[in-house]
Amino acid sequence: MAPLTAQQDNFPQWYQDVLTKAKLAENGPSRGTMVIRPNGYALWERMQAEVDQRIKSAGAHNAYFPLFIPMSYFEREAEHVEGFSPELAVVTHGGGKELNESLAIRPTSETVIGEYMAKWIDSYRDLPLLLNQWANVVRWELRPRIFLRTTEFLWQEGHTAHSSEADARDYAVTILRDVYEDFMRNVLALPVIVGRKTPKERFAGAQNTMTCEGIMRDGKALQMGTSHELGQNFSRAFNIKYSPADGSPELCWTTSWGSSTRMVGGLIMGHGDDKGLVVPPALAPIQVAVVVVKDNDGAVTQVAKKLTQDLMARGLRAKLDDNLAQAFGWRATDWDLQGVPVRIEIGPRDLAEDSAAIFRRDTQSKERVTLDSVADQAQRLMTTIQADMLAAATARRDALITDCTTLDEVREVAQTGIARMPWASVGTAGEQELATSGVTVRCL
Amino acid sequence: MAPLTAQQDNFPQWYQDVLTKAKLAENGPSRGTMVIRPNGYALWERMQAEVDQRIKSAGAHNAYFPLFIPMSYFEREAEHVEGFSPELAVVTHGGGKELNESLAIRPTSETVIGEYMAKWIDSYRDLPLLLNQWANVVRWELRPRIFLRTTEFLWQEGHTAHSSEADARDYAVTILRDVYEDFMRNVLALPVIVGRKTPKERFAGAQNTMTCEGIMRDGKALQMGTSHELGQNFSRAFNIKYSPADGSPELCWTTSWGSSTRMVGGLIMGHGDDKGLVVPPALAPIQVAVVVVKDNDGAVTQVAKKLTQDLMARGLRAKLDDNLAQAFGWRATDWDLQGVPVRIEIGPRDLAEDSAAIFRRDTQSKERVTLDSVADQAQRLMTTIQADMLAAATARRDALITDCTTLDEVREVAQTGIARMPWASVGTAGEQELATSGVTVRCL
Ligand SMILES: [Zn+2]
Ligand SMILES: [Zn+2]
Repeated sequence: MAPLTAQQDNFPQWYQDVLTKAKLAENGPSRGTMVIRPNGYALWERMQAEVDQRIKSAGAHNAYFPLFIPMSYFEREAEHVEGFSPELAVVTHGGGKELNESLAIRPTSETVIGEYMAKWIDSYRDLPLLLNQWANVVRWELRPRIFLRTTEFLWQEGHTAHSSEADARDYAVTILRDVYEDFMRNVLALPVIVGRKTPKERFAGAQNTMTCEGIMRDGKALQMGTSHELGQNFSRAFNIKYSPADGSPELCWTTSWGSSTRMVGGLIMGHGDDKGLVVPPALAPIQVAVVVVKDNDGAVTQVAKKLTQDLMARGLRAKLDDNLAQAFGWRATDWDLQGVPVRIEIGPRDLAEDSAAIFRRDTQSKERVTLDSVADQAQRLMTTIQADMLAAATARRDALITDCTTLDEVREVAQTGIARMPWASVGTAGEQELATSGVTVRCL
Repeated sequence: MAPLTAQQDNFPQWYQDVLTKAKLAENGPSRGTMVIRPNGYALWERMQAEVDQRIKSAGAHNAYFPLFIPMSYFEREAEHVEGFSPELAVVTHGGGKELNESLAIRPTSETVIGEYMAKWIDSYRDLPLLLNQWANVVRWELRPRIFLRTTEFLWQEGHTAHSSEADARDYAVTILRDVYEDFMRNVLALPVIVGRKTPKERFAGAQNTMTCEGIMRDGKALQMGTSHELGQNFSRAFNIKYSPADGSPELCWTTSWGSSTRMVGGLIMGHGDDKGLVVPPALAPIQVAVVVVKDNDGAVTQVAKKLTQDLMARGLRAKLDDNLAQAFGWRATDWDLQGVPVRIEIGPRDLAEDSAAIFRRDTQSKERVTLDSVADQAQRLMTTIQADMLAAATARRDALITDCTTLDEVREVAQTGIARMPWASVGTAGEQELATSGVTVRCL
C-alpha cells in the first residue's frame, strides 16, 4: 500500500488519499454524488446515534417528509424549470409520462414542513412543536468534494415552532450548545468555536444564525452545524399560527437547525495525520483492535479471542484481527489508516512472557503490559485518549488564533491561521473590505 | 374524537381512520407520497433498530449508494424517458439546465451496488461481501396506500456476494429466518408464514424467492419481507467475479433481500382493533403510560412521576401523562388509539388506598394492584402481553387456514381465508387457473 500524500505537501490530496485508502467513500456514478462505503458509513452511523440521542433529549421528535416537492412551492411565477434555482434537481417525468407539474428533489424540507406545521398547529397547547428529520437532500454542486460538498448528502434538519420569541431563542441555543457543541466537543473531540454569524453570512430569512466552526489541520475553519432563529419570518410565509389561551390567533416563532455528512469530513480533517484517520474513542465504531501478530499452534488466537470477548463484556467496541493470511505489517498499517484508537498486539513471544503490546493511535506510543492487565489498561485509555485528543486539538486551534487590532493584521494572519478581533472594530464595512481579500468573518 | 370505523364494517376505512386519528401518517403534497408523523415514525425507528441489529449480527455492513442512477443503467437503447419503465421518476434538469443524461431516482440500488461490487471484489478473500443500505426509494404508484404502497418509501436492501452457491443459499436463509422471521415473530408478534414463492411470483432474475407473509385482521396476507437467491444471474449481468485461491476468475453467487415501511402497515393491520393500534411490548416506543387521572394538590403527580422514573430505571420505555388540562377520558381513548401495551392510572382515591389501576391494551382488562407492586406487575406484563399477542395472532391465523384438496375448495376458502394445499396438487397450471379467480399462491 503506497503511503498517503503528506498533509503539508498537499492537504486536499492527503484528504482524497485517506478517503480512498481507508475505503471511506468514492464518487458515485453521476457527477457530484458519493458512495459511502462501510468504513465511512460506520462513522456516520455513530454520529447519527450520538446526535439523535441529544436531539431526543432536547425533546424533539423524528418524522419523515417526502423527497418530492412540487415546483410551485419554490416560486409561483417561473414558467420553465430553467427559471428555478440552479441548486434544484427537477423530476419532469414519472409513471412513464411527462408530469403536469414538475417536482423538485428537496434541497431542504423547509417548505413542506412549514405547510404541515401550519396544518398541525391549532392552539397554544400544540406548542412547542419540535420536529426533526434524518434524510437525504440534493443541492446541485458544480465543485463537489466528498463529504464536504456533494450534490446529494445526508443530514438532519430540525424545525420547531414556539409561542414566544424567548422560547424559540432558548431552543435554538439549546440545540447549538447541548446537541451540536456537546457532541462535537465531547464525542468528536473537536473544540469547535461557537458563536453567531454576521448579518452577511446569515441564513436567508433568519434573524440570527449561530454556528459551530471546527478548525481543521490545515488551519481552515469548517462549518459543522448551524442553528437559526427565524423570528416570525418563516411562520408569516407559511401562515403558522396558534390560538393563545385568550385572544386571537398569533404567528409562531420558529427555529431551524442542521448538521450533515460534512461532519465526517470534519472528523477526518480535524484529527487525521500522515498515517490516516485518528478517531476519538467516544465515536470510534471499533475502539480496540486485538491483533494476532503470529500464531503457531492456535494458542495466541485463543487468548486474543478471549481478550476481545472480555473487552466487549466491558462495553467496549472491540474487534479481533486474526487474519493471519495477511502480513502483520500490512494489517498494522491498515489499523493506523482506520484510526482505531487502541491496538493490542499479541504474538507467541508475548504469550510466552504473559504480556502484550498496547498501542495508542493518537500518540503512536507503544507499551508492553502484562496480559492480565491489558483489558483494564485499554479501558482506561479510552478516557485518556479522548481527553488528550481534545487537548491536542485545542492547543492546535489556539496556536492558530491571533488577536488583531487592525484589518491589515487580520489579512496577514488569515493567510495561515485565524484572526480574532472585536466585531465592534470590524463592523459591516470592515467585513466587506476583508471579503475583497478573500477573508470571511466566520463567527462572532 | 369520533370513534373509528369498525373493522368489520369497512376494513380499509378503519385503516385510514387509524392513520389519521393516531396521527401516524398522511398524504404528502405530491401524489403517492406520505408524511410520516412522529407517532408513525417512532414505530418505524423501533423496527429499524431491531432489524438493523439482526442484520449486523448476520455480519452485513451498512453503506450508502446515491439516489440518482444514470438512465443508461436501465436500458441502453431507449431514446426518450417515456421509453423507460413507468415505475421510474426521472430527473431531466439540474444546475439550472437540461442534463445531457437524465437521471432516474433509484427504484432499488441493485444496479449501482452491482457495479461497485464488481469493482470492490478481487479475490476470494473479499468474499463474502455483505452489504446493506437503509434508504428511500421511488416507484411510481398509481393506486397509493399509505405504508402499504407509496411512490416513495423507506426500506433496507441487502446485497451480498459469495464464492459458492451453498454459501449464498445459506445466507439468504439466514436473513429470512434470523432477521425477518425472528423480528416479525418475536418483536412484532406476528406469526408470519415463511416459505418460497412460486416461479410465477418470483423476483425477476431470482432462482429462488423466499417470503414472510403476515396475516392481517381482515384475513388477507401481506408480504412483509423477501430474500432472494440470485444464483449467478446478477453477477453475470454486472460481471461480479473473484479469483479463487487457484485457477481463473469465477462469477460470484449473490443474494438480495429487503423489508420496508410496509411493515408499519403490517403492524397496524395485524394487531389493530376497533379502538386503534395494539402494539406489542417488544416494539412499542412507549411501553407503559403512567396516567394521572386527577390531582388536587400535586400528590398524585408526584407519585406518578416517581413511578415513571422507577419504570425507566428498570429499562422500560415509560411515559408520564400528567396533562390535566385534558379530560381523563379523552386521554385514555388516545392511549388506546396509540396501542400502548400497559397503562397505569392513578387518581386521588387510588393514592388514598395505596393502589393503582393497571390496564392491558391487548385484552382491555383492568386490575387494581397495590402501589408498591405496580412496577413489578408492569414489568411482568411485558413478557405476558408479548406472548399472548403472538398466541392470539397465531390462533387467528390458524382459524383462517383450511386444508384443501381441490382447486374449487381453494377458490371457496380464499374468499374469506387462506387455503392450504400441497403444491404438487396445485402446480403451475393450477396456479394459472386460480389466478383467473383472483387467487394468488403466496407461499410454498
Ligand atoms: Zn417527455
Ligand atoms: Zn428545459
